[in-house]
Amino acid sequence: MTTTIKDLGEIELLNRLKKYMRYGQIDDDLAEIKTLNKSLLINTDLLVEKIHFSEKISNAKDIGWKCLTTNISDLICSGSENIISFTVGLVLPSHTHWEWVENLYEGMWEAMQEFGGEIIGGDCSCGDTKMVSITAIGEKKQPRLHRGNAIPGDYIVSTGFHGLSRLGLALLTSEKLPSEVQLSSQLTNKAISTHKRPYPAIKALKALKECKPRSTSWRAAGTDSSDGLIESIRGICQSSNCQAVLSKTSILKDPDWPEDSMWDEWILNGGEDYELILTLPREWAEALSKELKSAQIIGFIKEGKPNIFWDNLEPINIEKSNLFQHF
Amino acid sequence: MTTTIKDLGEIELLNRLKKYMRYGQIDDDLAEIKTLNKSLLINTDLLVEKIHFSEKISNAKDIGWKCLTTNISDLICSGSENIISFTVGLVLPSHTHWEWVENLYEGMWEAMQEFGGEIIGGDCSCGDTKMVSITAIGEKKQPRLHRGNAIPGDYIVSTGFHGLSRLGLALLTSEKLPSEVQLSSQLTNKAISTHKRPYPAIKALKALKECKPRSTSWRAAGTDSSDGLIESIRGICQSSNCQAVLSKTSILKDPDWPEDSMWDEWILNGGEDYELILTLPREWAEALSKELKSAQIIGFIKEGKPNIFWDNLEPINIEKSNLFQHF
Repeated sequence: MTTTIKDLGEIELLNRLKKYMRYGQIDDDLAEIKTLNKSLLINTDLLVEKIHFSEKISNAKDIGWKCLTTNISDLICSGSENIISFTVGLVLPSHTHWEWVENLYEGMWEAMQEFGGEIIGGDCSCGDTKMVSITAIGEKKQPRLHRGNAIPGDYIVSTGFHGLSRLGLALLTSEKLPSEVQLSSQLTNKAISTHKRPYPAIKALKALKECKPRSTSWRAAGTDSSDGLIESIRGICQSSNCQAVLSKTSILKDPDWPEDSMWDEWILNGGEDYELILTLPREWAEALSKELKSAQIIGFIKEGKPNIFWDNLEPINIEKSNLFQHF
Repeated sequence: MTTTIKDLGEIELLNRLKKYMRYGQIDDDLAEIKTLNKSLLINTDLLVEKIHFSEKISNAKDIGWKCLTTNISDLICSGSENIISFTVGLVLPSHTHWEWVENLYEGMWEAMQEFGGEIIGGDCSCGDTKMVSITAIGEKKQPRLHRGNAIPGDYIVSTGFHGLSRLGLALLTSEKLPSEVQLSSQLTNKAISTHKRPYPAIKALKALKECKPRSTSWRAAGTDSSDGLIESIRGICQSSNCQAVLSKTSILKDPDWPEDSMWDEWILNGGEDYELILTLPREWAEALSKELKSAQIIGFIKEGKPNIFWDNLEPINIEKSNLFQHF
């Protein structure tokens, strides 16, 4: 019996490919190249039509914005706000309208105006399905946030709300909502714009740097919540070989978010929110939650086999968070 | 009427995208990043199934080898034999066998054993068609070979035979040959292996560096012949704003290559041969053709609107060389 990659799943597929690679992007968000006086961070992300984007709900400009900002978020959640450059690999069906391509690049351009960086090259080819492959390069900066940097005693900090992008997707696709409630127009507008135009947590990264107490070193763990809040914490626990204890009541919700607990699933596993999920020494975590209004301490790290619990010791079903497995 | 990218063609598409990019890979083979003490060369290439490779004629190991070596060739023809790293973006249908993926990486591994570099990261996703997007990074070295570096008076040097890969493709697909001739088994074997396992011109680059006369500067124009011998010279003329005059009798053929002139087309426009096409000051060109047995002076550069002529002043139809336009 031969094994298909569907049988393996994405995580196992990447695991099997590890032997061909230097430690880097598989265990963390990106890879790194040392030069004499400067280290660069390199990140490659693919966006495939119908898997990562759909023209039914996003126009080409939004897709261009999203292609770059998902990459930029990986640089930011690794500690770099100095975005240097991008290469763009583009596969397009030959009947694609030029206008679509132009708008795609316009959207990328808008993202570069906001976050920096420039497109330095790329390649394009014909193909049945639209596909964008972005390689982003940034300068390594202090603190170099790694998923594997958490240690027992760290506080877990989320830099913003979750669930908005998932709600935006549901509204754009007329999906049934978790329960019948009246949503405010502020919430629906914010949710749709969060989904269409994700905004990497550059302000949170800057605040993190500015508020570091002198008494602590630069060590901090970090990732982004692009695959969901719980999945990002699972990633930190896995790479740092530790457990997380979360306080349900501390996880901030948008002021307009429905009270109904049926809606919690989207906060925990909705994905595509691009907030920073950090684990920090207590002093630093407290300083950040003072400095940055949207930041909140949501739990702590303890010793143990990688796992996540609520503070009533109820385990969190992390098997469920395979929403972002693409095979 | 809307314009499709098929209407535009690849060259016009890339031209229209130029405004979004720093001068770099579109006008040359790759892009460059300056760091304080070291400059890096970055190159992104896409390989799409049925466009750039076919499983009917190449196995996964050969495809893996080809994915990296086509990228490596772009670094080498830009002057860098110091290959640092690669990122790999991989799109695969979910029914793909793991064995296929493993063999793909085995082929890449073999290429890295031969030419250096390591895979430092990447991404993978599901998709209908297999696609490999490679970003290769190398260290900038002297001479930085640019397509745009040619000046009138330069000699044009080819570092090896052309047409072999095209013949290999024809043999592998049982395509009709240009004329009925008896081919030696040496030639058929060499042609098939050249097509399946392209070998970038690293030895030629080393010879070029070693034989530079003290009297000349490091300025040299260069590209690889991956899109065909004539196309590579067209690229140099275009980027350097000059003309090329070629001597038909100087273009070396494999000793076993058929004498019949019907076969010349494959030498001129066959493609995928990965030799270096250089333009050099006379002394350097002569030194290289002495140092490297396979190198041959095949013409010279003169002033004028970009064009290519035979030495009897007959123009070469360069419109024909759109074999490698992928839309």
